[in-house]
Formats: sequence, structure tokens, C-alpha cells
Amino acid sequence: MTKKDLNIEECFYWMQRAFQLAQLADGETNPNPLVGAVVLDPDKLLIGEGFHSKAGSPHAEVEALRQAGDAAKGGTLLVTLEPCCHYGLTPPCTKTIIESGVSRVVVGLQDPDPRVSGNGIRLLKEAGIEVITGILKEEISFQNRAFIFRIKTGRPWGILKLAMSFDGRTGLSNGKSKWITSQEAREKVHALRAKCDAVIIGGGTLRADDPLLTSRGLRNPEPLRVVFSQSLSLPIGAQIWRTESAKTLVAFSNENALPLIQELPENVEKLKLHESNPRELLEELAKKGCNRILWECGPSLATSAIKQNCVQEIVIFMAPKLLGGLPAMTLLGNFGFDSLDQALILKEVSLAKSGKDFVLNTFLE
Amino acid sequence: MTKKDLNIEECFYWMQRAFQLAQLADGETNPNPLVGAVVLDPDKLLIGEGFHSKAGSPHAEVEALRQAGDAAKGGTLLVTLEPCCHYGLTPPCTKTIIESGVSRVVVGLQDPDPRVSGNGIRLLKEAGIEVITGILKEEISFQNRAFIFRIKTGRPWGILKLAMSFDGRTGLSNGKSKWITSQEAREKVHALRAKCDAVIIGGGTLRADDPLLTSRGLRNPEPLRVVFSQSLSLPIGAQIWRTESAKTLVAFSNENALPLIQELPENVEKLKLHESNPRELLEELAKKGCNRILWECGPSLATSAIKQNCVQEIVIFMAPKLLGGLPAMTLLGNFGFDSLDQALILKEVSLAKSGKDFVLNTFLE
Repeated sequence: MTKKDLNIEECFYWMQRAFQLAQLADGETNPNPLVGAVVLDPDKLLIGEGFHSKAGSPHAEVEALRQAGDAAKGGTLLVTLEPCCHYGLTPPCTKTIIESGVSRVVVGLQDPDPRVSGNGIRLLKEAGIEVITGILKEEISFQNRAFIFRIKTGRPWGILKLAMSFDGRTGLSNGKSKWITSQEAREKVHALRAKCDAVIIGGGTLRADDPLLTSRGLRNPEPLRVVFSQSLSLPIGAQIWRTESAKTLVAFSNENALPLIQELPENVEKLKLHESNPRELLEELAKKGCNRILWECGPSLATSAIKQNCVQEIVIFMAPKLLGGLPAMTLLGNFGFDSLDQALILKEVSLAKSGKDFVLNTFLE
Repeated sequence: MTKKDLNIEECFYWMQRAFQLAQLADGETNPNPLVGAVVLDPDKLLIGEGFHSKAGSPHAEVEALRQAGDAAKGGTLLVTLEPCCHYGLTPPCTKTIIESGVSRVVVGLQDPDPRVSGNGIRLLKEAGIEVITGILKEEISFQNRAFIFRIKTGRPWGILKLAMSFDGRTGLSNGKSKWITSQEAREKVHALRAKCDAVIIGGGTLRADDPLLTSRGLRNPEPLRVVFSQSLSLPIGAQIWRTESAKTLVAFSNENALPLIQELPENVEKLKLHESNPRELLEELAKKGCNRILWECGPSLATSAIKQNCVQEIVIFMAPKLLGGLPAMTLLGNFGFDSLDQALILKEVSLAKSGKDFVLNTFLE
């Protein structure tokens, strides 16, 4: 049986499906990338689908070929990322592909992992398989931006979460900052944590907020909770030390702090850093397999993370309220509020773009 | 000839047209409201349209009836606001309407002006005209919110314009704040000024920015430029003192400042206040016929204007940049920038709603 040609529209169509399959495991595959695959028989009928669900589970192309079985012979495999050609937690996919008898492989993006990078494609070609590459590669790069960033830099992709009122405030001058945003926004933060492999706070946030820092079950396992502290004067009764539902790691560098560290529960992991800066911390987290981490820290740690190129993406929650406060090149001065209940409420917010800027229009309640 | 019935959908349809006509003069009718009108003949065909273009010009219904001429007899007038029944700069509209011979008048909103408020409608009914009221009244109230607010409170509707970076900053710690937003955003500010009868700044803004404060010809006449100053240590060479293209008013209360005031050019209007607070200033501007004013001041005057209920609407321009600066319950600390060119640029901004809050997602360039 002669295989049918696959035109470029068909390549895009099926690669889009493989892309969607890959996305199903977003945030759960670390340290691996997101990968999706489909298998077509020689008549171009769909006979197998797969995605990589987590490290140690079958790779996407293996799962899709398993579904396809013998019908794959003479057919086409489409896979978002170049198949691996090395033994990791699972055997090399190139071997499985060659054995399956497919006569064509369409690859989205060449694997940025130097252990693969082009070698997978070469092996397939050497086995007499037709290989088409570069289909949807920009979209797939974006989908795997965290994985690719870690491979290239040795640090996970950093997301900084911020929350403020419409006048750019994170709290009142008296320190009250809980809660500026709504319940719905806080649920969105849980979903954001679920896409990350670790969530980092500083000692100040731990002392001020005593956060639980979990995704509330949206991710299994929960992201690693990291406390990055200089002083290590940490409250011994904090929620974060209870590790039944999520693991906790304390990163520190102060040698004198060792007695303090030993007071923390045994099941809390302790990590001694040399320089104790955000960059060193992220390098350590990359070694632990983190592709993407979330900064949920206060302004000084956030500023230092940005300065050290440890933030690539920012998510800002904006509550339609005016808080006022100490003037420091900020929109408004002091209203004299001593409780967040006193915040001025804004209503009927609309938003437009104006060149590169955004325009919020709103009314005082 | 018996007039045809006008059903409710037809009332809405033609009132919507009258509403659109009224909107054409938005920002130019002070101290008067926006009003639009259409006239239908007895067969419900459109025979006249009009809107109030500026104080002293014909009222909307008079213009529409003039276009309609004798064909209006037995027909219908639809007008967004209750026709006036008093002599102002023009004769009462009720007289013109009765003389036109229309047999039905559809009124959007009852005039909030106590000199009219129901009396116009009563006079029409007494003349044997069928009157239908309340069509699109919420939309017309919103269209005339500035006029209605002034009638009710004796103060113009206050809009506060603010501009900040994504981290809620108005400038760098060294005072540099020009320009945070883009050229397009600044053009949008010109359009905003064109909808206002006066634009107010404090002495600090005058000293720091030396603004021109005009709509760049979008409004004719230009809005009144108001400098509200305590110290009156104002730069004598500021652009705002040149009044060829736009009028300028200086509001002050400090008796000791009179010699300083006398140094300002003669063609600049001087207004002595008693208490020198935003509320007193706005009461004076209402007396001058201002329906809507724009605060383009710094944080301390803005805060005091909000406290005194002199701000009803806020327009925030947000530039996708991070400036950092002195921490004061703000998102970020100091990056050590000494020029706005050093601001961190954010790209690929997307925005979503989350409950009552907004979520900005963006990437560091």
C-alpha cells in the first residue's frame, strides 16, 4: 500500500490536535516538557492519540503508537516535540517509532535538550522514515517556554504574582493588606499555583500572612512550598510547617541560623545556600526538576528577583478600590484609613487600549 | 387626518436617534444639558432632526420643528429631555411646540432643573397634546450625568485623570515623571479635556511640568485652565499664562499672595477663595457654568478632591512598564533607576476579569 501525501493544511490540523493533547498536562510534567502526539493510518485516518502526563509515565508518541497498534504500519506519527533518543526514566522513543513501522513522522519543535536536539530526527531519517519538521513551532515553543528556559539557563521560568488596588497599593500604611482582592481572584491564584512546580515566599510574608500556599488540591502533588529567609526568625506555629498535604523547603545561608533551623519540624527540607540570592535559589530548584516557579513574596524580594533576571512573567491582580497611603511617587496620598473596609470602592470599570497603554475608566461608588 | 399610533418599539427606536443626535455636542453645551430631538409626520415619517449644539444656540426641539415646518401638524415630536417652559437665552420651547401643531410629544427624561421639572410636560398636556414620558430615561440620565450632578449639588461633575506604570508609580524617586505614557495616551488626554469645561492643576504640577493643558484644538473654545495654588510661587514664564488660545484662571486664598498675583499677566483671571479647598473652587466653577471638570493634579490635591466628594469618575492610564521606587505599601522597591528610559518594559499584555478584580498577564521584555 502506497502512503498518501499529507499536505501542509493537514499537517497543521493534526499538529493542532497534538498541541491540545499536550496542553492537558500543563504544569504537571516537570522536569519534562509538554508533549502531544497523534497517529494516522496510511489512509490518513486517526488511529491513536497520546500526551505525556507526568515524569515516568509513557511519552506521548509511545502512548499514541500503542493505541494505533499494527494499523500504524505505513502511516504517520505527528508529535509536538522531537522524539527522544536516549534512555531516561523510559526507553528512547525513536526505537519505538522505528519498530512501529510508520513511514512518516511530523515533528513540531526540535528538542532544545542538548541530549536530543536533532539526533532524534537524524535517527529516524537513517531508518528510512520521511521526517517533516517545524509545524506550529512558535506555538509549541510558547507552550514549553518554562521547560525551554530551564534547559537554556539552568533556572526555572519565574512568574511573579502581585496584587494591588487601582491606586497601586498593596496595603494600608498600618500594614493591613488582607484581603485586597476578592475570593474569585484568590481562587485564580490557586489555579496559578497549580501550574507551578514551586511557590516561593520570603520570611516577611510568612510572618505577616501565615499562608497555606497550596493549590487547594488542584495539583497533585501540590507545588513545593519554599520559604526563602535571611533572618530565619520564622514563626514555629506557621501552617506551612505542616507537610501532610504539601512539601515545604526552607532556604537559608546564615551559618548562625543553624540552631534556629533545627527547631523546625524534621519533615521540612532545609537547604543551605552560599550566596542566598534569588538566582542561586532558582538554580537549586532547577536541579530539583522545577520548570516553573511562582514568586508570592513582598516588594523587596520581588525587586531583587527581577534584578537578577529571575522573573519572566508577571500576573497582577487589580482590585477596583482606592486605598491611599504614604506618597512615594504614587497616585494618591493618605486618606487616613485604618481598616481595609474603608477603601473607596470603584464601580462600572471599563478598559480600553491606547497605543501601548491601557486606560481604565471607573466611577466612585 | 387621524394620527397613527406610535408603539413602544417605535418610541425606543426614534428616541435612540434623538439620543445619538444629542451626543454630537458632548462636552460643548455647558451650562446646558445635551438634548436631541426628531419630528415625525402623522404617517410616522422622519421630517426633522435637531440637537442643542451650545449655549445660546437653538434648542434641539426648535431646530427639529423648524426643519419639519408645516408637515409637523398632527405629527410627533420626540425629545430626550423635557422641553423648557421658561425664558433663558432662548424663548420657552413649550410655546414653539404648541404652535407647531404636533399632536404628540415623547419625552425621554424629566428635566432635573427645578425651573422646568414637570412644568414643561404639564403645559403641553394643558394644550391638548398627548405626552409619553420615560423613554430611555436611564441612558439619558447617564448621558447628562454631569449636568444633572451640577443641578443637584451645585458643583460640576469631577473627573480625575491619573497615569501610572504597571507597578503603580507616577515617577521615579528623583522626581522624573515625563513621560510615562505613550503619545497615543497623551492624545487621548487631549480628547478627554475636550469633553470638559475646565481643567484643574495645582501649583506643583505647574512648576514640575509647565503643561499647555489644552485639547489641542479639539474643543472650541478650549476648556478653562485653572491653577489652584496655595503658595502662589508660580513660574512667571509658564506656558499657561499665554491666553491667546485658551483662558486661564488662578484660584488662591492667601491674602499675602496679592502682590504675587499682581505680577501675573492681566488677561489671566484671578479668583480669591475664602477657604481654598477643592469644594469651594468647584462651587465657583459651577457658577461660571461648568458642568464637568478634569483634575490633572498631583497626589495631594487629588486626595483632597476625593475626600471632599469632588471626584465622581476616574480615568487611569497604565503604561506597561515597571519603575520601582521608594516602598510605601507598593508593589516593588527601588531599582536604582535615574532615567525613565531605564524602566523595565512589559510586553504581550493580556487582561481578564476575575470576580470584581482584574488580572493583567504580561512578560518582561
